[in-house]
Amino acid sequence: METSQEFTQAREFSYDVFARACPSRGTLEHVTGRWGGLTLCALHERTLRFNELRRRVDGVSEKMLSQTLHALERDGLVHREAQPTNPPRVDYELTPLGHDVAERLMSLVCLVEGRMDEVLAARERYDAVRGAR
Amino acid sequence: METSQEFTQAREFSYDVFARACPSRGTLEHVTGRWGGLTLCALHERTLRFNELRRRVDGVSEKMLSQTLHALERDGLVHREAQPTNPPRVDYELTPLGHDVAERLMSLVCLVEGRMDEVLAARERYDAVRGAR
Repeated sequence: METSQEFTQAREFSYDVFARACPSRGTLEHVTGRWGGLTLCALHERTLRFNELRRRVDGVSEKMLSQTLHALERDGLVHREAQPTNPPRVDYELTPLGHDVAERLMSLVCLVEGRMDEVLAARERYDAVRGAR
Repeated sequence: METSQEFTQAREFSYDVFARACPSRGTLEHVTGRWGGLTLCALHERTLRFNELRRRVDGVSEKMLSQTLHALERDGLVHREAQPTNPPRVDYELTPLGHDVAERLMSLVCLVEGRMDEVLAARERYDAVRGAR
């Protein structure tokens, strides 16, 4: 297949997510993890403060959001900006690299959201066959 | 920001991954989960048998790969084809929807692999500041 070949050629990097010990696998997990992906997508919309993020990423706990933001900040995807106000105001925004990652994530999210009718129909077919066995 | 607006407009679906109870969140987790993403990317390269997949997705256990494949099959992303041979031969391949999802995932994976030098440099800076405190 042409497309697959292109991808294989394009993937000639020193890093390989398929290799268990490659650090790229850890970063892929940070950006696609349960909360990491939604956090990046939320920040792709605009700069947000911690509590705004927490409301946007429905269901995340304070602890998990905090851990998620630390990992994304450490990987250079999110920038944390503390304003010298009282009380201190902390804004989170994407770095240029974070923006690039978030755009590709959003493209995946849009596809999944847009094709959920197909997914749900497939689930019904799958469960019907399994249930009949 | 123009790009964000486009995405916001494009995201006018009935499904919303930001909502805790939306089924699209579960599907997003299947396709971006620890093993789901790598499995889809591996199958994007070509049709594979179970043991081939297990070798390609370095580090996955038999049990986890089996669970991952079931979830992806149920969501209509992977097709399981059992050949009537002895011993039975089972091939896994992407459905058209699975291909669309895998292409966007591969685009994300390529970006992460290609920018890992930046990520690792960011980690060093982050750890240096934290260590100095």
